Amino acid sequence: MTREADFIARLRAIATHPAARGLADDAAVLPLSGEIVLTHDMLVEGVHFLPTDPPGDVAWKLVAVNLSDLAAKGAAPIGALMGYGFTGDPGWDAAFAEGLARALTTFGLPLLGGDTVAMPATAPRTLGLTAIGQAPASGAPSRAGARPGDRLWVTGSVGDAGIGLAIARGVANGPAALLERYRRPVPRLGLGAALAPLAHAMADMSDGLLIDAARMAAASDVAIEIALEAIPLSPALRATAGDGREARIAAASAGDDYELLIAAPIEAQEAIRAAAEQAGLPISPVGTFTAGAGIRLNDRGEPLPLPARLGFEHDG
Amino acid sequence: MTREADFIARLRAIATHPAARGLADDAAVLPLSGEIVLTHDMLVEGVHFLPTDPPGDVAWKLVAVNLSDLAAKGAAPIGALMGYGFTGDPGWDAAFAEGLARALTTFGLPLLGGDTVAMPATAPRTLGLTAIGQAPASGAPSRAGARPGDRLWVTGSVGDAGIGLAIARGVANGPAALLERYRRPVPRLGLGAALAPLAHAMADMSDGLLIDAARMAAASDVAIEIALEAIPLSPALRATAGDGREARIAAASAGDDYELLIAAPIEAQEAIRAAAEQAGLPISPVGTFTAGAGIRLNDRGEPLPLPARLGFEHDG
Repeated sequence: MTREADFIARLRAIATHPAARGLADDAAVLPLSGEIVLTHDMLVEGVHFLPTDPPGDVAWKLVAVNLSDLAAKGAAPIGALMGYGFTGDPGWDAAFAEGLARALTTFGLPLLGGDTVAMPATAPRTLGLTAIGQAPASGAPSRAGARPGDRLWVTGSVGDAGIGLAIARGVANGPAALLERYRRPVPRLGLGAALAPLAHAMADMSDGLLIDAARMAAASDVAIEIALEAIPLSPALRATAGDGREARIAAASAGDDYELLIAAPIEAQEAIRAAAEQAGLPISPVGTFTAGAGIRLNDRGEPLPLPARLGFEHDG
Repeated sequence: MTREADFIARLRAIATHPAARGLADDAAVLPLSGEIVLTHDMLVEGVHFLPTDPPGDVAWKLVAVNLSDLAAKGAAPIGALMGYGFTGDPGWDAAFAEGLARALTTFGLPLLGGDTVAMPATAPRTLGLTAIGQAPASGAPSRAGARPGDRLWVTGSVGDAGIGLAIARGVANGPAALLERYRRPVPRLGLGAALAPLAHAMADMSDGLLIDAARMAAASDVAIEIALEAIPLSPALRATAGDGREARIAAASAGDDYELLIAAPIEAQEAIRAAAEQAGLPISPVGTFTAGAGIRLNDRGEPLPLPARLGFEHDG
């Protein structure tokens, strides 16, 4: 059995859903109805993950970043198609397949199809995943629906993955929990589904709180004012980087957290807090949308200059 | 405007379908109902296309190879998501975007979303497309439904793209029509939809007639016997390579033709010919399925040894 055939046999063992047709057909075929959410995100070695990241964690991340897009639309996962480039390391491929099986099982996401291709041995590992989900009955909230007076909420904690990346690169020390946040982000599927009916706008936070909030404001044709002191930091981050202004600005402009940003009217406040409590996750109001354009940053009422870099802009 | 921003602006100008949400949201959102067909194929420079292939033709091929999978299931295109890796050549990117717009317009395929990522400058260009289609009311035929006694049909002509690839590589001379078959394959969408209700099994022919016919037979748990003399060769191929046994075997084991293979009972013969006539394409019976396993090759009744290489096996 060639190494490719071995990998494909592993994928076939994962792809037991009837719509996958045993990965032996030209395409997946499945019944769908209603509003469907579709996303496709790629991961490239050296750009989105480090050559030293464990292959199983890369598989997890490939699944998680796509499911995070579904979570941001309040959608329930239906299935996925994967594009996988072989780069001549059967051990890596096998460990990836194991991690993929674990991630798909964790999130109940059937593998329905895709493509495996040979790549030149010098090419960076390149992966793509298309995730398909069912929009909530209330409709998939857009990124563009924030209105003046809406509050901006963020789930979980901010900045952990940024320090996790520094730990993975060997340029910082810190607890394993922060490394884990970088390597194995958890898409907020349940909470996303609960928040969607309450939100004017939703998006996931992949490139940084400041940049993703600014994008939501720009798409919605409004301005956003962020309260630095309200940004939720985890105990692990505070123990590592402290809780000063510098640490907070770094957290607010770091990527890879995959939390959700939600724009919602003040009246939704109690329902939002109740949804988060039920999901067992913190949720924090971190800003206010106003008429106008652009992003402003305050610290306990004091206007601050924006950092030169609002977040990660690797790919527009 | 950065080169990435320029490319994304071009994609936004293409992605006018409301489900694309201006490519400014986390995901595409669209209403679907019934049996949906989903496929994802990647193209890698140096593996699936040549560095010298014109970028607009690479875009065409990315769209066409995915639509060919839909055609093989009799499906009507609904939309596509693209994954695109920037490799630092804005001229190439711009020409690709122009070719993409042309291909999508030609096939009426809305661009609904996807991802653009930075790649290291040394990486081969890597592209992925997910195509979504509506299965025919009669259901999407599987690759695995051929039965003993069924005839194997092939649309169009066989082997043109193989010579076209040799022309593109500069190792053969021949008419532009053959190069065009390699660079700009035409998915058989209309004919695929017309044949689906008549077929026991359907697949597209991307890796070669012999290998793809053998795969259909293996998936269906039957044997296939191919009549070499019945394989349809184009006038351009015959003028270039002749019509001898060697040329026919080369044509039958060459890839990239993107014609359709159809297994159907003898009684469907007239309806199949009528569908092909209406589509303005030739269709030819080239073999017979029998009980058993494997592939056999005859030339006017004389059994031939199989060629060492049945087709293209780049990626399992």
